[in-house]
Amino acid sequence: MTIGTARQIVLAARPKGKPQLTDFRLEETPIPTPRSEQVLLEVQYLSLDPYMRGRMDDRKSYAKPLQLGDVMVGETVAKVIASKHPRYSEGDIVLAHTGWRTHALSDGAGLSKVDPALAPVSTRLGVLGMPGFTAYCGMRVIGKPKAGETVAVAAASGPVGSLVGQLAKLAGARAVGIAGGPEKCDFVRNELRFDAAIDHRAADFPAQLAAACPNGIDVYFENVGGAIWQAVLPLLNNFARVPVCGLIAQYNGLPPGDGTDRLPATMRQILSKSLTLRGFIYYEFASEYYADFLREVGAAIADGRIRYREDIVDGLEKAPEALIGMLDGRNFGKVIVRVGI
Amino acid sequence: MTIGTARQIVLAARPKGKPQLTDFRLEETPIPTPRSEQVLLEVQYLSLDPYMRGRMDDRKSYAKPLQLGDVMVGETVAKVIASKHPRYSEGDIVLAHTGWRTHALSDGAGLSKVDPALAPVSTRLGVLGMPGFTAYCGMRVIGKPKAGETVAVAAASGPVGSLVGQLAKLAGARAVGIAGGPEKCDFVRNELRFDAAIDHRAADFPAQLAAACPNGIDVYFENVGGAIWQAVLPLLNNFARVPVCGLIAQYNGLPPGDGTDRLPATMRQILSKSLTLRGFIYYEFASEYYADFLREVGAAIADGRIRYREDIVDGLEKAPEALIGMLDGRNFGKVIVRVGI
Repeated sequence: MTIGTARQIVLAARPKGKPQLTDFRLEETPIPTPRSEQVLLEVQYLSLDPYMRGRMDDRKSYAKPLQLGDVMVGETVAKVIASKHPRYSEGDIVLAHTGWRTHALSDGAGLSKVDPALAPVSTRLGVLGMPGFTAYCGMRVIGKPKAGETVAVAAASGPVGSLVGQLAKLAGARAVGIAGGPEKCDFVRNELRFDAAIDHRAADFPAQLAAACPNGIDVYFENVGGAIWQAVLPLLNNFARVPVCGLIAQYNGLPPGDGTDRLPATMRQILSKSLTLRGFIYYEFASEYYADFLREVGAAIADGRIRYREDIVDGLEKAPEALIGMLDGRNFGKVIVRVGI
Repeated sequence: MTIGTARQIVLAARPKGKPQLTDFRLEETPIPTPRSEQVLLEVQYLSLDPYMRGRMDDRKSYAKPLQLGDVMVGETVAKVIASKHPRYSEGDIVLAHTGWRTHALSDGAGLSKVDPALAPVSTRLGVLGMPGFTAYCGMRVIGKPKAGETVAVAAASGPVGSLVGQLAKLAGARAVGIAGGPEKCDFVRNELRFDAAIDHRAADFPAQLAAACPNGIDVYFENVGGAIWQAVLPLLNNFARVPVCGLIAQYNGLPPGDGTDRLPATMRQILSKSLTLRGFIYYEFASEYYADFLREVGAAIADGRIRYREDIVDGLEKAPEALIGMLDGRNFGKVIVRVGI
């Protein structure tokens, strides 16, 4: 039996636009004790991801919204610290969906063991986890870049975008990254070895993007929406593919419009250029491609063909601030909260 | 040598919004004489299709715009009335792209012979022609309806929509047609045997459409855009497929907006429902599927499983008025101009 205090962060209020610190509440509870067929998990790392913003709203999407008082959802890497479950032993490291908390009970559903020898375990939340797999299946199933084509992606220093561009390069395509600010652009160009990196904060961003894509864009991996989509749209080539995995620019609500309905122009481009737009969530493809992903991307990380960057935040109590910052693009790399300290 | 006067209709002015009769001009020219390797064609039937509106504008699309003074483009069924071409003889009936004219010379490029014994030759401009093939390949390659699914299509009494719904039925799916006015809806329901037909002019059209799709919509064949898309969007199921072959609602320009940007809501649905939107033009699929189309749909017409309706207009000089009417939905069935009278 474990004695002590667990901490968790719950949804305290529904955000209006950008989340505020007051939309979250830190709670303390006793550390629970596992019963038969249960394990007690101690969370080491919590992944912060843009989709979490959507769950804070009270509207239907591919997942149910959180209710007020619910623990914030999230994927974690955790250590089994007590087990009455036949398949798990004390000391096992697992991937879990515990949400934003230091400790959790589990009956094993949704857990999967992680081999710490393969790669740093935190990567299983980033480049070798859900974000990396999102990039991988979006490119493999929908984007399908061919040698000589041009692939563009925004949030290019982030966990999804950074892998999208590197997978494009491995396929022989030209990779054009879009990121916020010179530091991230330097990283995308020099560390991730994209062919070009464009700062979307530049006043002449659309012109810079056009100049970086002299042969147009064949694959645009959409994770942002908004003004970046407007700059990409005229550059798309006939038969371009647009995997749509996120729209972070509109998660906090939309900026005041200028009265223009931009839907007809997008529909016209879809028609006249025979575009494919395809929304997807990684789990649609998990059974078919996850093993390939771990093997291929794992090997490419091990031999240095694929690089990644993590933005580690220390302490569960810092998670709300880190999520708010990420939604504003203030992170630099995959945001992971180191919980177990 | 043929003596006489040919007539043709040219683009006289670029339309502002809806085309006017003054945007067209009827011209008379001498009937030309074929030289070596040429045939002289006498046009029997001219197809009128929504895409023609786009060619009248001076903006880039999948095809070059017409220049002022150019003969209006269009596909025709024509008779070879003089031939110095080794592959064609006097009396042959051919499909051609002569445009809006009574006579034309051809070197054989783009011609294909039509067997008048197979079906009435006018069908090669409609249900057994480009519109029919648009429906066929959009459904076969993109829509892919499964038994028990629901397929919705607008302009359901027209040449594309009528075949979309009938192909859905042949695939075991539920077919819901959208059409303008009670007469067309009766035809769609009773003659074409769709499961339901909804009048988009009804004040409560979105509610009627929702009621006709109790299990949502799995395939929406988009040929209209505008308000109908807005009614369809909330009804789309997860993984719905949207072949986009036309946007007739926006070809004449857009109605004044209400200041709402409708793009973010569409993008959000694409993401949260894992939708596929895919623009296409039939010729992308012609080499792979055209022979299948002729065989399958030809057989289904012959044995009555597929029905069609033509809206025949007599006289080339009536073509401008007929095109203007079609863009307003005033046709009833595939619009064909009987030229050779």
